[in-house]
Amino acid sequence: MTWIDELIEIVGPDGLSTGESVKAQHARDFSYHHGHQPDVVVFPTNARQVSRIMQVAYRYQIPVIAYGQGTGVEGHTIPLQSGITIDFANMNRVVAVRPEDFVVQVEPGITRQALNKILGPYGLFFPVDPGADASLGGMASTNAAGTEALRYGAMRQHVLGLEVVLADGRVMRLGGPTMKSSAGYQLTSLFVGAEGTLGILTELTLKVYAIPQLTVAARAVFNTIEDAGEAATEMIMHGVAANRLELMDEQTIHSVNVVEGTEFPEQPTLFLELAGNHHNALLEDLETCRSVASDHGTSDWTVEWDADRRQALWHARHKAALDILAASGGSHPFTTDTAVPLSALPRALRHARETLNRMGIQGAVLGHVGDGNYHIVMGINPEDPHQLDQARAVNEAVIRYAWEQGGTCTGEHGIGMGKTRFLREERGESSALYWLIKDALDPHNLLNPGKTIPLRD
Amino acid sequence: MTWIDELIEIVGPDGLSTGESVKAQHARDFSYHHGHQPDVVVFPTNARQVSRIMQVAYRYQIPVIAYGQGTGVEGHTIPLQSGITIDFANMNRVVAVRPEDFVVQVEPGITRQALNKILGPYGLFFPVDPGADASLGGMASTNAAGTEALRYGAMRQHVLGLEVVLADGRVMRLGGPTMKSSAGYQLTSLFVGAEGTLGILTELTLKVYAIPQLTVAARAVFNTIEDAGEAATEMIMHGVAANRLELMDEQTIHSVNVVEGTEFPEQPTLFLELAGNHHNALLEDLETCRSVASDHGTSDWTVEWDADRRQALWHARHKAALDILAASGGSHPFTTDTAVPLSALPRALRHARETLNRMGIQGAVLGHVGDGNYHIVMGINPEDPHQLDQARAVNEAVIRYAWEQGGTCTGEHGIGMGKTRFLREERGESSALYWLIKDALDPHNLLNPGKTIPLRD
Repeated sequence: MTWIDELIEIVGPDGLSTGESVKAQHARDFSYHHGHQPDVVVFPTNARQVSRIMQVAYRYQIPVIAYGQGTGVEGHTIPLQSGITIDFANMNRVVAVRPEDFVVQVEPGITRQALNKILGPYGLFFPVDPGADASLGGMASTNAAGTEALRYGAMRQHVLGLEVVLADGRVMRLGGPTMKSSAGYQLTSLFVGAEGTLGILTELTLKVYAIPQLTVAARAVFNTIEDAGEAATEMIMHGVAANRLELMDEQTIHSVNVVEGTEFPEQPTLFLELAGNHHNALLEDLETCRSVASDHGTSDWTVEWDADRRQALWHARHKAALDILAASGGSHPFTTDTAVPLSALPRALRHARETLNRMGIQGAVLGHVGDGNYHIVMGINPEDPHQLDQARAVNEAVIRYAWEQGGTCTGEHGIGMGKTRFLREERGESSALYWLIKDALDPHNLLNPGKTIPLRD
Repeated sequence: MTWIDELIEIVGPDGLSTGESVKAQHARDFSYHHGHQPDVVVFPTNARQVSRIMQVAYRYQIPVIAYGQGTGVEGHTIPLQSGITIDFANMNRVVAVRPEDFVVQVEPGITRQALNKILGPYGLFFPVDPGADASLGGMASTNAAGTEALRYGAMRQHVLGLEVVLADGRVMRLGGPTMKSSAGYQLTSLFVGAEGTLGILTELTLKVYAIPQLTVAARAVFNTIEDAGEAATEMIMHGVAANRLELMDEQTIHSVNVVEGTEFPEQPTLFLELAGNHHNALLEDLETCRSVASDHGTSDWTVEWDADRRQALWHARHKAALDILAASGGSHPFTTDTAVPLSALPRALRHARETLNRMGIQGAVLGHVGDGNYHIVMGINPEDPHQLDQARAVNEAVIRYAWEQGGTCTGEHGIGMGKTRFLREERGESSALYWLIKDALDPHNLLNPGKTIPLRD
């Protein structure tokens, strides 16, 4: 019996595929990274099956990748050494909604929009929003953040408990449904963001929130990117109840106008969303934001309370990444992901724009400015070595700039296969710790090999 | 040359003590746990010295304990196998205040009150408040939480970066001054709460906050402990801007009255602190709380805005632990630390009170009710085996009850030497992970041996 036969015994013939189209679909993610096919894709329906799959993989020493929606942008789910891809499409249930505990237990395959659809009738929502309709397992594995992280934090702060299958197939339960715990080492935080290199997540216990009663959106247009960045930083310092605080530069708005046929002023623009339960407090915070924007020379200040009109106001931001891709004529996005200390953000945004201009490369600058994390998005054709080299040069330039400010090469997208060498340089000798942990938990390097941590010295 | 001579070469003769009084001072913590003396106490002044101390300890295979203020309550700093205690009294500086980044870098020996004195003039504060004036290094090592965790979270959410000395003396730098990072495994979260068993913290980069413009305190008296617990849970569900939400039961108030000569109604009482930047919003939240309290039959609702009067209103809560000790005639506190899912809290509080009554033991029930974490405090004489047995029986009873609700044996005090066997039972086979991590980072078990993780099977 081959190892594939053994896998079929576990998941049944319908739970496994070696078909070319299925393998091709699991060869890439959303990004520019070159694809590579797995040998086989399995679709387990429960943790017991995942455990048995890992036992087979361990016995035959076959690499394993966990796959949710493939919306990562650093090649996390690309099986560099082939092997088994575990697709969680059939493990997408809500195990329990516990509204009175502000807790929900889910399988890793459920997407964030599906989860929020289930939570809505309870008056609850899950706030982490990385843009794409990613799976919760994938979001946890990459410590996803996105636009609402400013207020609610990233995935790590929302994963209270985990069920994890280790490389040898053992099933571990970490954390639980309490808001606080000091019981032993905090291993949930270690598996969150480990990108499937330490274990396979099979269940998540998540913290959820009451939906705020009131939400208001605003948009402010500025003359320069520093003006916009400084205004954003100042709004944060005033402690306004901002859920989201996003910046798009003039080129980004231009791309949206070209693709969507809109006529937004092609200048650096801040998008705000404030939320709370008190109308007067929101009005006061809005007035604070308007006044700060005005101090920084805003020429256009628009406010919307109505849900549909809020959506329309935020439309440009929501479409930005796809529109940039379309406007550039590129086939895939190459996205930088640097984060800097808060005060360094305005000049970092300027540096990002100037880097693109100096190198003559089309790209958009946009940022989660409330937490110092910003992106350059370039649409490229990854088969064109020149385009790829150029985008890589931009990436390296902004990473080195962020390091000079005390920042990091990745605020929220993770390391994947794209940034292992930067991580090595960023952490220096401290990188040694990563291998101490990896060797302890995955001694044969079967779990997502080649990702997340620097190559061994 | 002995290993003590080698240590003197590192820290100088004034930086080391083998005196009986110094050793006795480092033999105990704040709790009932039996003391044990170190062989030597060293007082390094910088990370380089700590690294060299660890190199000596590693070479001679001598156990090492990190010591801040000794305010732990689970014996964390008691050197069970003697060896070297590193006291951080001379490493208590603020390395940098970066108000524009909402970041401060400190040495581990600084206490939280000293830090807040330095932050105040910048309009900033550090919110984690475990009650005692603990050192930040100790607070990080135990993932301390306390009364403001409801709003701001525990230590783990505030440690952005760490400098750590490993068992073999290598110095590692983890994280940094950015609000977001997805760069490699999240190792700051692993060392926070590891109670000095994985490495020695020598510098912390912490997230700080703007002081809210307005603060208001309130107190509500209830007929039963469930009424109080249910009211607290309901207030949280309404999303009021509570910094602190604390419950004391009738026996606790009685102890305060006896010791302080006050005349508080001897009934279950909720203490609230709300804070924000909008007067109307606070008034609305206060009204929500009052209305919820009234629905649960409150007989006494007091509000104070003035800073001194707020202090006076909270006086009973602040004195509770010490007054319970004094009223009981015990010499040391024995404190339980269970946490349960939010909805289980009211009946858990009732269970705690009934357990004390059933066993005829004097003790106070108090809780950080906003996050499901509650304590029984018993004043005991640890030299009296009967008292110790009784307190242990209470502890075991509430832990088993919390487990039945899906809770944990420790919400914020940690495992130390007091709860390793409970951790083993709580985590079951998943305990194996702890030793995988411990062996990877401290293969000779030199760092705080016998603490934090269950004994090896």
